[in-house]
Amino acid sequence: MYPQVIEKLIERFSKFPTIGPRTAARFVFYLMSLSQKEVEELTELIMDFKKSIKFCNFCFNPFEGKEDLCHICKNPKNANNNLLCIVEKEQDLIAIEKTKKYSGLYFILGGTISKLEPKNLKSLRIEELKERIKNPQKFGVANENFKEIILALNPTTEGEATALYLERELKSLRLKITRLGRGLPTGGELEYADEETLSSAFEGRK
Amino acid sequence: MYPQVIEKLIERFSKFPTIGPRTAARFVFYLMSLSQKEVEELTELIMDFKKSIKFCNFCFNPFEGKEDLCHICKNPKNANNNLLCIVEKEQDLIAIEKTKKYSGLYFILGGTISKLEPKNLKSLRIEELKERIKNPQKFGVANENFKEIILALNPTTEGEATALYLERELKSLRLKITRLGRGLPTGGELEYADEETLSSAFEGRK
Amino acid sequence: MYPQVIEKLIERFSKFPTIGPRTAARFVFYLMSLSQKEVEELTELIMDFKKSIKFCNFCFNPFEGKEDLCHICKNPKNANNNLLCIVEKEQDLIAIEKTKKYSGLYFILGGTISKLEPKNLKSLRIEELKERIKNPQKFGVANENFKEIILALNPTTEGEATALYLERELKSLRLKITRLGRGLPTGGELEYADEETLSSAFEGRK
Amino acid sequence: MYPQVIEKLIERFSKFPTIGPRTAARFVFYLMSLSQKEVEELTELIMDFKKSIKFCNFCFNPFEGKEDLCHICKNPKNANNNLLCIVEKEQDLIAIEKTKKYSGLYFILGGTISKLEPKNLKSLRIEELKERIKNPQKFGVANENFKEIILALNPTTEGEATALYLERELKSLRLKITRLGRGLPTGGELEYADEETLSSAFEGRK
Repeated sequence: MYPQVIEKLIERFSKFPTIGPRTAARFVFYLMSLSQKEVEELTELIMDFKKSIKFCNFCFNPFEGKEDLCHICKNPKNANNNLLCIVEKEQDLIAIEKTKKYSGLYFILGGTISKLEPKNLKSLRIEELKERIKNPQKFGVANENFKEIILALNPTTEGEATALYLERELKSLRLKITRLGRGLPTGGELEYADEETLSSAFEGRK
Repeated sequence: MYPQVIEKLIERFSKFPTIGPRTAARFVFYLMSLSQKEVEELTELIMDFKKSIKFCNFCFNPFEGKEDLCHICKNPKNANNNLLCIVEKEQDLIAIEKTKKYSGLYFILGGTISKLEPKNLKSLRIEELKERIKNPQKFGVANENFKEIILALNPTTEGEATALYLERELKSLRLKITRLGRGLPTGGELEYADEETLSSAFEGRK
Repeated sequence: MYPQVIEKLIERFSKFPTIGPRTAARFVFYLMSLSQKEVEELTELIMDFKKSIKFCNFCFNPFEGKEDLCHICKNPKNANNNLLCIVEKEQDLIAIEKTKKYSGLYFILGGTISKLEPKNLKSLRIEELKERIKNPQKFGVANENFKEIILALNPTTEGEATALYLERELKSLRLKITRLGRGLPTGGELEYADEETLSSAFEGRK
Repeated sequence: MYPQVIEKLIERFSKFPTIGPRTAARFVFYLMSLSQKEVEELTELIMDFKKSIKFCNFCFNPFEGKEDLCHICKNPKNANNNLLCIVEKEQDLIAIEKTKKYSGLYFILGGTISKLEPKNLKSLRIEELKERIKNPQKFGVANENFKEIILALNPTTEGEATALYLERELKSLRLKITRLGRGLPTGGELEYADEETLSSAFEGRK
């Protein structure tokens, strides 16, 4: 129904995460309402971002700068840099940093194992992870060997499958491997909690 | 928490309609996962779109082409081009075209009156509308004068206020002015309908 | 898990409309928290209600009283009692009365035709409806013959099927048969309206 | 709008937990559709339930039987009956029993402290709790003194306030007092977890 160039842009925005055709159409009409200059500023911002962002040599966290390491890997806050926390994606790293309760290093795995498509294992940074655990100094971080690997994956089906897989893969390194504690979240209710969560809450009582 | 260039892009995407900071962050990580080439294709698509789209000289519908009129204004389908249907925005025009029940001309008003900010009246194309009703041929459409102006605005507070305002503004032109019929929508239930809708449904029975 | 008498009551409350086992359990614990006297008052209220409510001889509206007709059938408000409005259920009648736009008689059909189970036709009061249309005075209402039968059924699949069926059944009576007007409801938006609703809104413009 | 006896019953059902006037009306029409016999069976079930249910002398769990103690208090499954788990309400006890991970005794507090109405403290069984902790044998349970009191209250504002209050009240008994473990629930996601939950998950890692 729309002119072809609009349809093409709607189709393109529909590939953005969480966006369907209707919201994609709203994006296009929003861009239409902007001035030529404002649209140019937007595309320049996107290109700038793409050019100036690079991935940390150790943890794969995206950052802006000329060095090889992101600010977390470069400036370990304290003696806890013999902890390594493995997360699925950037947003999870940010969520953990916000708690200010963890001061070790991170590693961004880049995804999870999907039960249905085990082939997407290739897109996970498993080999990169092993190399960095075996020889962290080689990748520029100033720490002794790791004493604990924390698998900070979501307690979802995909996250659990990924944690199990990593445990097997990392077993031969003979390191302490831990997972995040399970239990009732803030605002949760016993009455509506699943049995596994409630069992964990009982076991982890203190 | 994120590098500055990421924060800036999150902030920019947060201005897109319906998008909050969390989805904006997901957009940025999505762009990060694309290749340099894919990001360039996206920004080129946006710039192409911006350059090739122009607004119809008569109805302000966006279209692609070298002429002054969009395909609706250029090719009135039948004798009904003495009908003019006023809509708030492009998507409403498309929704009406999909019904295939209307074959007259359109005019895109560009917004509605907000009760709280009456000053946004200036952004509505009220003067443009009056000129086109008084002298449609001047703007390129091949039709006699209009016999009916249909105010196809949403039956929301803003839409109703806009329709009332337009009725006053257009009164002196002594044209037949109509509004869309009110009633129960497909799938609606009497039990949950508001009194105004149900009253309209009774009055409009047939 | 619960004592048997609790489980039985949970099971019974689960048959109430919209109630699942969890809310049913909450009802039981609520009754548990009441005094013996309060529970007796509740069961007496239920029994009183069941004994004192009867169905109007003409329209099947439930009412309280010694007479044969409900207050609507007994006191037709004005000359419009040659209108008969057929509704699915009591709540629909109440919804229409609240609009104060209709002053004719009603008939409660007692349900709709389900596409999947055409046998539930038997539970609809079709024969009762025909008798009352043919000879309203026989059932106590003081009016001449009807001039218009309004099929005030929901514009849902079931409601539409029921309306079609009634049209066929009542055809031989050679009466004017109407349906409620379709269109945009209060608060509706063109952009999200289905094509049928929008077509009706265009046809019913005024 | 409805007959008085219907309005009264709608009003009464509206006091049931989670029920508003519209669902209450649906309940009344549901009862109307039942036979006299079915309604009598319902009210008898309610009265039977009310008469045959009593509260356990020790834990206040409702049960059916001639004895003083419910089946949990009567038959402690194992040596863990020097654990006492304090819950807000019956449903929480059932939720914990379903996990099969806890085999101690319970105590149903009967509610939580609401921040706004501290006077509802009186409705909590605080004194009853203290007596039972000090001298459990007096209330019929066959166990030594308790070694751990588990405050299994919801990690909500009300639950936390109640736990704090109980900790102060029970302090002088010099018993080990624990709370359920906090962390990510099954299906939870780091990205959307609040900081407190995520901090707890980190602290409780294993």
